[in-house]
Amino acid sequence: MSLIVQKYGGSSVADAESIKRVAKRIVETRKAGNDVVVVVSAMGDTTDELFDLALSVSPLPSGRELDMLLTAGERISMALLAMAIKSLGQEARSYTGSQAGLMTDAKHGSARIVDVNPARVRAALDAGAIAIVAGFQGFNRGTGDITTLGRGGSDTTAVALAAALDADVCEIYTDVDGVFTADPRVVPTARKIDTITSEEMLELAAAGAKVLYIRAVEYARRHGVTLHVRSSFNNNEGTLVVNPENGEIVEEAIIAGVAADLSEAKITVVGVPDVPGKAAQIFTIVASTEANIDMIVQNVSTAATGLADISFTLPKLDGAKVIQTLEAKKSEVGFDSLQYDDQIGKLALVGAGMRTNAGVSAKLFTALFDAGINIEMISTSEIRISVVTRADTLGEAVRVVHSAFDLDGEEEAKVHGGTGR
Amino acid sequence: MSLIVQKYGGSSVADAESIKRVAKRIVETRKAGNDVVVVVSAMGDTTDELFDLALSVSPLPSGRELDMLLTAGERISMALLAMAIKSLGQEARSYTGSQAGLMTDAKHGSARIVDVNPARVRAALDAGAIAIVAGFQGFNRGTGDITTLGRGGSDTTAVALAAALDADVCEIYTDVDGVFTADPRVVPTARKIDTITSEEMLELAAAGAKVLYIRAVEYARRHGVTLHVRSSFNNNEGTLVVNPENGEIVEEAIIAGVAADLSEAKITVVGVPDVPGKAAQIFTIVASTEANIDMIVQNVSTAATGLADISFTLPKLDGAKVIQTLEAKKSEVGFDSLQYDDQIGKLALVGAGMRTNAGVSAKLFTALFDAGINIEMISTSEIRISVVTRADTLGEAVRVVHSAFDLDGEEEAKVHGGTGR
Repeated sequence: MSLIVQKYGGSSVADAESIKRVAKRIVETRKAGNDVVVVVSAMGDTTDELFDLALSVSPLPSGRELDMLLTAGERISMALLAMAIKSLGQEARSYTGSQAGLMTDAKHGSARIVDVNPARVRAALDAGAIAIVAGFQGFNRGTGDITTLGRGGSDTTAVALAAALDADVCEIYTDVDGVFTADPRVVPTARKIDTITSEEMLELAAAGAKVLYIRAVEYARRHGVTLHVRSSFNNNEGTLVVNPENGEIVEEAIIAGVAADLSEAKITVVGVPDVPGKAAQIFTIVASTEANIDMIVQNVSTAATGLADISFTLPKLDGAKVIQTLEAKKSEVGFDSLQYDDQIGKLALVGAGMRTNAGVSAKLFTALFDAGINIEMISTSEIRISVVTRADTLGEAVRVVHSAFDLDGEEEAKVHGGTGR
Repeated sequence: MSLIVQKYGGSSVADAESIKRVAKRIVETRKAGNDVVVVVSAMGDTTDELFDLALSVSPLPSGRELDMLLTAGERISMALLAMAIKSLGQEARSYTGSQAGLMTDAKHGSARIVDVNPARVRAALDAGAIAIVAGFQGFNRGTGDITTLGRGGSDTTAVALAAALDADVCEIYTDVDGVFTADPRVVPTARKIDTITSEEMLELAAAGAKVLYIRAVEYARRHGVTLHVRSSFNNNEGTLVVNPENGEIVEEAIIAGVAADLSEAKITVVGVPDVPGKAAQIFTIVASTEANIDMIVQNVSTAATGLADISFTLPKLDGAKVIQTLEAKKSEVGFDSLQYDDQIGKLALVGAGMRTNAGVSAKLFTALFDAGINIEMISTSEIRISVVTRADTLGEAVRVVHSAFDLDGEEEAKVHGGTGR
């Protein structure tokens, strides 16, 4: 008998019909002889609707109260799912994050899990029941208050429970068939990846792949949890995200996939005096805004001027804040001006095989050059190469790179709309 | 400094605008120098909508899961109310039933409060904050599960907290100005009652007055809590429900008010053998259906036949069930037939002054006779007289009785629509 943790996102439980469909699937898994723990998100757009309601009574809602409010969403979906399962003749019990023992720190809105004590979940399984657990939420022991885990929180809940219960696999149900070599909406010939390492998955997620959230993959990697990303609309095998350091053998492709990201902008600090400590000064100022900066490039200064340009990318949402903060320190730092460019696209090529395969960057740059696509910035890690292009050439860039590395499948990928939380 | 518990029903917090209005009122009470605890119901029709959702996934939803689902409603309203108060610059903290220490038995859907330990509420008050508590919900320590208190549960929560915190008053906010001598929609000249004893209020509530729920009044009476029933739409004084046994002096009117109820039906068991034990046999059968029977009348048997008729009233909702159960035992009991009549109306005249005032029933019967209204059944308690009439004469009956006992006010009462939970 296996212990399986299944996570269903908001789009999988958007209405009564979807909930009944998911209930059926869960009961089938149970009847196949498995112990089943289900983590569920709020129905459809419930969380966004509750957030809008909060803004309509308060311009800046209290974090504590916002968490209290938003957690009502999973309370609704989990209770309905448990009812639907019971009406199929299978015992089921729903548990809030706090009842399921998900202890977090006290940071409302983006709490981190500090301990998991799923005693009630375990007891439900021992009694032959399916345990339904609210995703996205936890409990701080110090304050006694309810917390939420932030974006992708339900994935993290599922992985944390899988780790604490020593589950055989953590299945993440979504509306696509798994992790693809590229976004099928951009590259119609993108292939589903059968197996990928959590290290590669992390790089893909960090580079903009939406199917899994970074924190959940990190948690899975750290605790050796095997993830199975699959569709809730069919019974196809999805993508296994494995941890080879745990003794599993993975035949690694050189390249796992190509990720694309249009959510970033580029800021260039023009005319920075080329003296030691200026870069440190600039990025200390940027860090004070808590913006998440990504790629950084410093142009060589010309001897004539003694001035350099420093460019970096960051989420568009953080753009205004950083510009404003830097502008205020202009004379202190002594730069000439700031340029803001939100028409950039970021492409990342990820693959653990890169480590031992020379010539990957050369092949990437050649493919882009042949297609007439200009590269504006480059950054690399051990298993990833990222480049910045113009936003309007990003789609074409992804397609030619996908092709150049022989990632194209034989048939076109099927695409469903929407994503879960 | 007083400690005030305020309860707002669903119609008082139906949308963002109402929530902001209620928040303002609460802040005013706090600024007047009072400690304030607020008990809040779910917004508008939220509870009904959640219940419909439950029925759409399961024909017979599990009680445990239904309670988990329905309690999401107060979680939403209380968090929004706390946010709205905080955005007015006043500290506020919301607490679920379980966080507020409302311990109940494990009877899902109609749990009874067994203990109240409002340590966190008290701590919030001590810290200068307004405490917002979810109405209608509690927590069973044995199972660790969430429970709900059933109809009128938020009133009960407010009264239970007021008792546990030794509050000076428990204000029940509603959409009418208080308790009236009769339903203002039936009797336009009905007067608001300034002060009423909890004993009289109990009889009025039991006789169909909708403004307060019996359980809450019972709890208030048992624990000596003073209730103040008032409108959330103005600042008028409402009706004080007092407990004179606690030393308060109440100048009692002979009659407090007239209640009317169209929700009952009458069942007549025709041709019951007039031998000892038959009534007991019949009402044991009726009790097995858990129907709540009210008035009972047994006709005198004529010596010629040796048969009697027994009539009783019960909620229309229970009618079919009781008829079916009695019919199945027909030969065992030995009666002739059953008659079912759902066209009856029940009028109740309530007043503690009745005890020491002879002639109240005579005056009541005369008033009805003068108006040509036939009385079909009569039942009395120490402070109440109830009569059954035809349903279509009930309105007229209430008006003539109201007039006969000089209850009419000088101007017409104002009526708002809707009622809270």
